[in-house]
Amino acid sequence: MQVVMGIDPGAANLGFGIVRVEGNRMVALDGGVVETTAELPMERRLERIHAELSELLAWHEPKAVAIEEVFFGKNVQTAMTVGRASGVAMLAAAQAGVSCFSYTPQAIKMAVCGSGAAGKKQVQRMVGTLLGLPELPTPDHAADALAVAICHGGGAGHREAAELAEGVAR
Amino acid sequence: MQVVMGIDPGAANLGFGIVRVEGNRMVALDGGVVETTAELPMERRLERIHAELSELLAWHEPKAVAIEEVFFGKNVQTAMTVGRASGVAMLAAAQAGVSCFSYTPQAIKMAVCGSGAAGKKQVQRMVGTLLGLPELPTPDHAADALAVAICHGGGAGHREAAELAEGVAR
Repeated sequence: MQVVMGIDPGAANLGFGIVRVEGNRMVALDGGVVETTAELPMERRLERIHAELSELLAWHEPKAVAIEEVFFGKNVQTAMTVGRASGVAMLAAAQAGVSCFSYTPQAIKMAVCGSGAAGKKQVQRMVGTLLGLPELPTPDHAADALAVAICHGGGAGHREAAELAEGVAR
Repeated sequence: MQVVMGIDPGAANLGFGIVRVEGNRMVALDGGVVETTAELPMERRLERIHAELSELLAWHEPKAVAIEEVFFGKNVQTAMTVGRASGVAMLAAAQAGVSCFSYTPQAIKMAVCGSGAAGKKQVQRMVGTLLGLPELPTPDHAADALAVAICHGGGAGHREAAELAEGVAR
């Protein structure tokens, strides 16, 4: 049994999802979005994200934090902002003594759907199925975060995903 | 009189520079680089950066943190890594109750040298001159961080720089 925290980083909306892995079975313990408004200065938004994630880490005591990594198809400014949110998430994990693992969107889709080219809706449906949720997980950022957690915890095609996984944080 | 902390963000080498501004005069109080090795996982490197910056903030009690912002001429992966370091720097500032301000390289060069197209050596020489340093500031990351602090504190051509400054954090 291990608990994995998945994170879909963003400064405006950071998705999180907590999954408990028991052998081949996975259960969603928590999921949601840390929202911050554009009216707050960036440093205050990051402070809020860090505080909320620290609280979630203390509560769920995950064994690992899995973060969606963005490398391609984004512009430099977006990557910089996503990096800031990802940085404070990694810091919260380190301060809680939890190791971080980064996965590309392709690796996550591979783990969840068995195909690195799966669409957003398909990922959402498979996350719901794998976690036995009564309805589709929403909002998108929470579903994406659950998908990263599944990817790390071992979904369909997990081994292939691990091979694709970018070892940035590890 | 106000103290400004400048930061040139990076995960491997994060430059910092502390400048005291007294009217038209500026004095360097501190400057250096937080280095982290690639052998450490990224979350541990960020933890180290956060801890060292928090200590510097508590010691020097700056009124503002000025951060060099990268938007262009970098690839997405570099921007993501720079963003992570920048994110934990901003978080340390927020936790110390200090506001952050972001400046583009062009704005910084304009403030320090009076030209947004100034070369690296020229910036380094002007940083030394404006701060009355006995020799050229080194290493590069520390010199760059002092330049951001000067930019925020008001160097030559400060007004023009302020107009160019990207208001990301503010």
